[in-house]
Amino acid sequence: MKDIIIFACNSAEEFTKEICDSLSLPMGKIDCFKFANDNNFVQLKESVRGKDVYLVQTTKPPVNERIMELLITVDAAKRAGAKKITAVLPYYFYSRSDKKDQSRVPVTAKLMATLLEAAGVNHVLTCDLHNSAIQAYFDILCDRVTGSYLLEKYFKDKNIKDMVVIATDAGSSKKAYKYSKYFKCPMALIDKQRATNNDTVVATNIIGDVKDKTAIIFDDEISTAGTLVEAASIVHKHGAKEIYAGATHGIFAGNAIEKIKNSNINEVVVTNTVPVEEEKRIDKIKIVSIAPLFADAIKRLNEEKPLGDLFIYDK
Amino acid sequence: MKDIIIFACNSAEEFTKEICDSLSLPMGKIDCFKFANDNNFVQLKESVRGKDVYLVQTTKPPVNERIMELLITVDAAKRAGAKKITAVLPYYFYSRSDKKDQSRVPVTAKLMATLLEAAGVNHVLTCDLHNSAIQAYFDILCDRVTGSYLLEKYFKDKNIKDMVVIATDAGSSKKAYKYSKYFKCPMALIDKQRATNNDTVVATNIIGDVKDKTAIIFDDEISTAGTLVEAASIVHKHGAKEIYAGATHGIFAGNAIEKIKNSNINEVVVTNTVPVEEEKRIDKIKIVSIAPLFADAIKRLNEEKPLGDLFIYDK
Amino acid sequence: MKDIIIFACNSAEEFTKEICDSLSLPMGKIDCFKFANDNNFVQLKESVRGKDVYLVQTTKPPVNERIMELLITVDAAKRAGAKKITAVLPYYFYSRSDKKDQSRVPVTAKLMATLLEAAGVNHVLTCDLHNSAIQAYFDILCDRVTGSYLLEKYFKDKNIKDMVVIATDAGSSKKAYKYSKYFKCPMALIDKQRATNNDTVVATNIIGDVKDKTAIIFDDEISTAGTLVEAASIVHKHGAKEIYAGATHGIFAGNAIEKIKNSNINEVVVTNTVPVEEEKRIDKIKIVSIAPLFADAIKRLNEEKPLGDLFIYDK
Amino acid sequence: MKDIIIFACNSAEEFTKEICDSLSLPMGKIDCFKFANDNNFVQLKESVRGKDVYLVQTTKPPVNERIMELLITVDAAKRAGAKKITAVLPYYFYSRSDKKDQSRVPVTAKLMATLLEAAGVNHVLTCDLHNSAIQAYFDILCDRVTGSYLLEKYFKDKNIKDMVVIATDAGSSKKAYKYSKYFKCPMALIDKQRATNNDTVVATNIIGDVKDKTAIIFDDEISTAGTLVEAASIVHKHGAKEIYAGATHGIFAGNAIEKIKNSNINEVVVTNTVPVEEEKRIDKIKIVSIAPLFADAIKRLNEEKPLGDLFIYDK
Amino acid sequence: MKDIIIFACNSAEEFTKEICDSLSLPMGKIDCFKFANDNNFVQLKESVRGKDVYLVQTTKPPVNERIMELLITVDAAKRAGAKKITAVLPYYFYSRSDKKDQSRVPVTAKLMATLLEAAGVNHVLTCDLHNSAIQAYFDILCDRVTGSYLLEKYFKDKNIKDMVVIATDAGSSKKAYKYSKYFKCPMALIDKQRATNNDTVVATNIIGDVKDKTAIIFDDEISTAGTLVEAASIVHKHGAKEIYAGATHGIFAGNAIEKIKNSNINEVVVTNTVPVEEEKRIDKIKIVSIAPLFADAIKRLNEEKPLGDLFIYDK
Amino acid sequence: MKDIIIFACNSAEEFTKEICDSLSLPMGKIDCFKFANDNNFVQLKESVRGKDVYLVQTTKPPVNERIMELLITVDAAKRAGAKKITAVLPYYFYSRSDKKDQSRVPVTAKLMATLLEAAGVNHVLTCDLHNSAIQAYFDILCDRVTGSYLLEKYFKDKNIKDMVVIATDAGSSKKAYKYSKYFKCPMALIDKQRATNNDTVVATNIIGDVKDKTAIIFDDEISTAGTLVEAASIVHKHGAKEIYAGATHGIFAGNAIEKIKNSNINEVVVTNTVPVEEEKRIDKIKIVSIAPLFADAIKRLNEEKPLGDLFIYDK
Repeated sequence: MKDIIIFACNSAEEFTKEICDSLSLPMGKIDCFKFANDNNFVQLKESVRGKDVYLVQTTKPPVNERIMELLITVDAAKRAGAKKITAVLPYYFYSRSDKKDQSRVPVTAKLMATLLEAAGVNHVLTCDLHNSAIQAYFDILCDRVTGSYLLEKYFKDKNIKDMVVIATDAGSSKKAYKYSKYFKCPMALIDKQRATNNDTVVATNIIGDVKDKTAIIFDDEISTAGTLVEAASIVHKHGAKEIYAGATHGIFAGNAIEKIKNSNINEVVVTNTVPVEEEKRIDKIKIVSIAPLFADAIKRLNEEKPLGDLFIYDK
Repeated sequence: MKDIIIFACNSAEEFTKEICDSLSLPMGKIDCFKFANDNNFVQLKESVRGKDVYLVQTTKPPVNERIMELLITVDAAKRAGAKKITAVLPYYFYSRSDKKDQSRVPVTAKLMATLLEAAGVNHVLTCDLHNSAIQAYFDILCDRVTGSYLLEKYFKDKNIKDMVVIATDAGSSKKAYKYSKYFKCPMALIDKQRATNNDTVVATNIIGDVKDKTAIIFDDEISTAGTLVEAASIVHKHGAKEIYAGATHGIFAGNAIEKIKNSNINEVVVTNTVPVEEEKRIDKIKIVSIAPLFADAIKRLNEEKPLGDLFIYDK
Repeated sequence: MKDIIIFACNSAEEFTKEICDSLSLPMGKIDCFKFANDNNFVQLKESVRGKDVYLVQTTKPPVNERIMELLITVDAAKRAGAKKITAVLPYYFYSRSDKKDQSRVPVTAKLMATLLEAAGVNHVLTCDLHNSAIQAYFDILCDRVTGSYLLEKYFKDKNIKDMVVIATDAGSSKKAYKYSKYFKCPMALIDKQRATNNDTVVATNIIGDVKDKTAIIFDDEISTAGTLVEAASIVHKHGAKEIYAGATHGIFAGNAIEKIKNSNINEVVVTNTVPVEEEKRIDKIKIVSIAPLFADAIKRLNEEKPLGDLFIYDK
Repeated sequence: MKDIIIFACNSAEEFTKEICDSLSLPMGKIDCFKFANDNNFVQLKESVRGKDVYLVQTTKPPVNERIMELLITVDAAKRAGAKKITAVLPYYFYSRSDKKDQSRVPVTAKLMATLLEAAGVNHVLTCDLHNSAIQAYFDILCDRVTGSYLLEKYFKDKNIKDMVVIATDAGSSKKAYKYSKYFKCPMALIDKQRATNNDTVVATNIIGDVKDKTAIIFDDEISTAGTLVEAASIVHKHGAKEIYAGATHGIFAGNAIEKIKNSNINEVVVTNTVPVEEEKRIDKIKIVSIAPLFADAIKRLNEEKPLGDLFIYDK
Repeated sequence: MKDIIIFACNSAEEFTKEICDSLSLPMGKIDCFKFANDNNFVQLKESVRGKDVYLVQTTKPPVNERIMELLITVDAAKRAGAKKITAVLPYYFYSRSDKKDQSRVPVTAKLMATLLEAAGVNHVLTCDLHNSAIQAYFDILCDRVTGSYLLEKYFKDKNIKDMVVIATDAGSSKKAYKYSKYFKCPMALIDKQRATNNDTVVATNIIGDVKDKTAIIFDDEISTAGTLVEAASIVHKHGAKEIYAGATHGIFAGNAIEKIKNSNINEVVVTNTVPVEEEKRIDKIKIVSIAPLFADAIKRLNEEKPLGDLFIYDK
Repeated sequence: MKDIIIFACNSAEEFTKEICDSLSLPMGKIDCFKFANDNNFVQLKESVRGKDVYLVQTTKPPVNERIMELLITVDAAKRAGAKKITAVLPYYFYSRSDKKDQSRVPVTAKLMATLLEAAGVNHVLTCDLHNSAIQAYFDILCDRVTGSYLLEKYFKDKNIKDMVVIATDAGSSKKAYKYSKYFKCPMALIDKQRATNNDTVVATNIIGDVKDKTAIIFDDEISTAGTLVEAASIVHKHGAKEIYAGATHGIFAGNAIEKIKNSNINEVVVTNTVPVEEEKRIDKIKIVSIAPLFADAIKRLNEEKPLGDLFIYDK
């Protein structure tokens, strides 16, 4: 692979190492620490002059620190003569702040795009956006890897009979429908009845049949796991024999792991777009690596080849 | 109202007139025609120097002609010394091309934002976007009026008993849920069973109860009316006694009117964000004007006041 | 030719095919149609990742549709990872709206440049601009092919004796002078005497001698053919034995063909920068193809060679 | 006039003083000199915070010094908090380098626009551009005063009988035609016959009648006066009784004054857009001041009124 | 004060309150917290439409969090229709990373300017930059308050006899010289002799006389206090009777307070540009508020008046 | 070296020739003269299409002429299809106007960066900036060669015993310290005592020992030589046996040469970043060429190699 160098920002060392190993490339040497005044210092320890530079960063909290580290590293690469700078963001920053849905709030997902472009990023490589419109928040090229192939493969390999895909609410039924189509199995929708005057949930119902079936709940990300665990509980009450969950991004914020541990869920499968701390890797949590797909994408980009199936959308 | 002038592009004369009448303002004089070589000519026939200029354009086909007319008029206003140019777009151009959902397709809704900004627009005033992320496709200020208050009021005034809100498919169940909450009535979801090997609809079902009820189907826009009419047919088969539809934007593309005429729908209510030709205004089609809301918005903008309830989101 | 792909927008298939054949390249596959709501859909059916993409578009009416098609295709190519996008515009859009010559009018030729750049075009390849200042309306590189070599060759091959070049009015005498210099023949100028109080033409005169000569009237384009046919009539009255006309761009707007058919003109020669419909290709209209010159230009650009004589100005 | 301040760059003191006197405004205090290392220093000696700042500069040689002075002064005003910066350029810099008419040459008139915008100019006020397309080289607002009213008035006041307007060559016949229309008099065109093989002028002719008439030669500028003086000589030979010349811009480059002095021209009228040195103000040169028109334009701009007749084009 | 609203970002509440009290303005209501996924949420709880919005942020660690909070708040204000957004930064972010002084490092102070502009800031109001060139890193207007008046006043009020200003090293002697000039007292320079082969300090000397004098050490900021405390120790050894330190910015990073406590320094005076935690406010640390100067600056900006002495440079 | 072409602007022929000879490249052919109206004309006489174009310009007065020549040449190269344009500026324009240090003055060094970028420069290669923050005034890549290696080598070769480096004032002591560290010799500082009431120098002193030593005074540039000559005089009075001066940039403005001639300085060494006129090359002035370092830099840039020691900072 010609004229390419891949650097890991602070939280992305493990992920980047996997990519580089896949590509038989050494990781770019970089120095990144804090001064006493809490200011970040970054120094690229290898020449990037005329090179195709990839900077990998994840959203392992503190998130804002990660963003600033990345932007500062971009500045260093730009001023050192990089030919092209690609930000590799397995989980896009602030992807939940994707639109103006209240008065006087920011659209931080758009702001991120603006900041990345302003700092000097030429290309973004990311994965399963919460809202795919974020891709067009960029004026520069933004390409997307998807984790759905990995999730589909994972459950396909389990060879599950009597599978049913669960939509946890009206909003997620479109995605659930897609998966049910892929697995050629039925779907079911959790329906919450609310008291009309105070919006309290007075009854929950399941539309569709889950009894004695293996229920699978898909989402793009698992954050606090509140919705997921509640859905599992309802599905369980309605007689599902096993319950699985699958998501590209395993955020596991707050006491998500605790909740999952104590839930009716048999197993939760995520990819490693977000680094999961050692202590969160309980038995129920399965992590499949998406780094090889990123490596493949980088290889194809370097060869200026069409990206194919691993990308949304470049088939 | 100080230093304000409102011009209608070619297809928006009626709508603009309503706004101007609401505000007791004369419409700006403008000359807009085609040369023999099919090139547009535009001339503003009044001074806009130092003025707050509003240019209103609708999407009455041919759509691309409307866009070019608008952009050319923006250029004329810019070069004539306008202080600020606001594009008033009751129905946003290409709002359905809102994301990259196939390989090598454009995101035309974003391109529109880019072109409007490039031409010299400083502010956009639009209404009920198909995808609210489009608002953040703009770097300039983009404000949104909503037609939902008008639709809600319309059906509230009908004083319907036994109302049920219909979600035509999984994708629209979130919106349906919102309306059902507003009307404090149940919702029902149309569920299509498809053959697993060829995606043919083999059975349709309704989740929820519509029998002897008044069903209302809401959407942001009615284009070919295919989904709507099919949904109405299913709802009808399941025993609904009356069927209504409500949408902000009445596109009525192709033979939509014909379809609606021959359908089980009692009445379709839309606003006038898109001009509906005389011959399409059959009895079943009710049009409520949203121009007064736009007039109110322009008044508040001119006074630099908070915009309040008629806007999403500036309460 | 390496890493190059050439696509035809809707109206430019024939012209593009000629270019591709010249270069022994297949035409890029592209899908371009309208949805029921009159919105354009474009999909590039081949990968453009890392490629040098040429998008060819002509101004065959409806002109505004052509512009929007092109801009949308540019967006598709940009988001699909094209390395460089060159818009090939044999006849530049709105080249007659080249300056602000009235109060509060647009300069649409400049707006076109602004829109093309905003959409993501990196290079423009065009031909014989109505006003050569348009070239500098671009901040990106804009190169120009010229059709004058073809027109000159055409008439040279005719081996005309007693040629005289006609300037149809004061404004075109500079161009006429250039051609007369090329052909080493005299020129003549049509002079219209107007009544001083109401600008009516009261007499026409020819300055210079046309009697028994072969008169040739050159222009950059023939639009409605009004001026041309009137000039021919005057030249005829003054005794010219044969009358020819030559222009790079054959717009033939309105009833231009009818007028030419019934005129004293023996033959009108144009290039194919603007597609001429089958029914307009009457005997008197001769069309010479300029596509090979564009092909040659693209070849040299691809090889990063100086462009030479076929370009204005890169000799 | 509210919040307005007008500064003169080094060469424009006299012109600016006239404007300020017209407006009963004091000239802004400014310090502008050279350091020993030939670097310019500029300091505005009065606050411009929140003000509408006008910076006047002329093209009195050395021209490049004038440009840099202006750009540096713009920078000073921008960093000092000016609300709006208008560059007042009675004669636009490099207006003759208005297009790419040879291989690998600059379009300096466009570059000027780019530099002015980059430095922070918000508005340009100029006069009688050599090529009116230059106006659209700006993305910011560019307005144009015209000197033709002054020239017309000057000759109208002379009450000349038997006037004929002279076009010095094919290229200027359009402008001559316009003046002849204004004065309701005939025009004549100088026609040079050249040897076909070496482009030598072998004969000159006048198309139209000048004998015993008062000939007036109009141009946008008089630079070396070569064409003008040669034309006068021909007109004289053909029997004109008196010869006048009128131009907006009196550059009088090289030995232009000498040539005019020794010519058959009775009088040359120019405006003061370009400062004419004392020693060049010979009897034959009449200078009418255009500063009051600029003052009027600034007054109207300050009042955000339409600019009217003194502007091209804001009637 | 018309159309003005001042918001405090999370760490700047105290400072902002002081400004607002000075101006008799209520603080703008704002909601700013973190979601479970460590993403910031910001909502302005008051309309900013058409208003002159001031957003105050300090660098209280974690610094990167402060930057992101500010940028996100800017985005919220921009999308809510603010007329103008001024970032008030009493201590400029990353002002020590002011130039490229090693291979492949960022210039983060410039990056900050780029990010603030990209997010939508229109004006920056800051104070005593570590390198005054940072001011010109902005293309937008950047104005600077200075704390030196407060420090000068503080020591003037002490009425110190036998004052000597200390330059802690060669690099700070220019600043020390300025203060010595202000107080009309001598200066002294600490001179470190280093072993030539390993750069170890082998001897320290004081150039100038400090014996029995009151030594004052000025700097723009006190970060880890290492240099300061070492200088004080040397000055003490050379017989100074009292030792003071003054700085605009009191960062007090790491164990700076501990070091100062145990040092020979009698008193350290700083302004409150950086919030000093309660536990760091030991007796030796004196804090004078610079908020009234910022309030005055904002008042003058609002009135579009020259800013005068409190600004560098707008006298 | 592939696809590279180097042009000299008017004042840089000699310097460029040296570079080209070093690289065994012919100089690019260019035509650059003035029209009678004092406007510059530039024409590149060789194709630059697809090439890596280097444009070399020095600051030989008139400085503003040099800047405009360069900008105009950049425009020519851009419009002729250059792939990349690098401005080679051995001495950066207006590097002394590097910050806003008075009210309402420009920051011309930043303005230069803005103008170069606006004109179309993609990369800047310069040398020893007066303030290294200027490097970050560019958003494009700016690399810096340094002359200090040449100066160090020059004096090293002299094999001076008893060397002492002189800091001419507090401001330059940091730089002097660096050189003293390099030569492993002591430094001394000239200290001027001023009367407190009128800033007159009443006494000068030298801190450190110069008696019987060889004193060397370093600076980044020698402009009027006032400070230098005065320092030499003081050093001489204090008994230095020989006095040398070294600087990267030899401006020699005003009567600098006269002053140096009559001074106590034995020799002044500069590089040729600024062309020194023949008559200024007196015996005392030694000029070492820095062109080979620039040539080496260009070679490495062309090969996309790290630049190494000759660059600040790309080791």
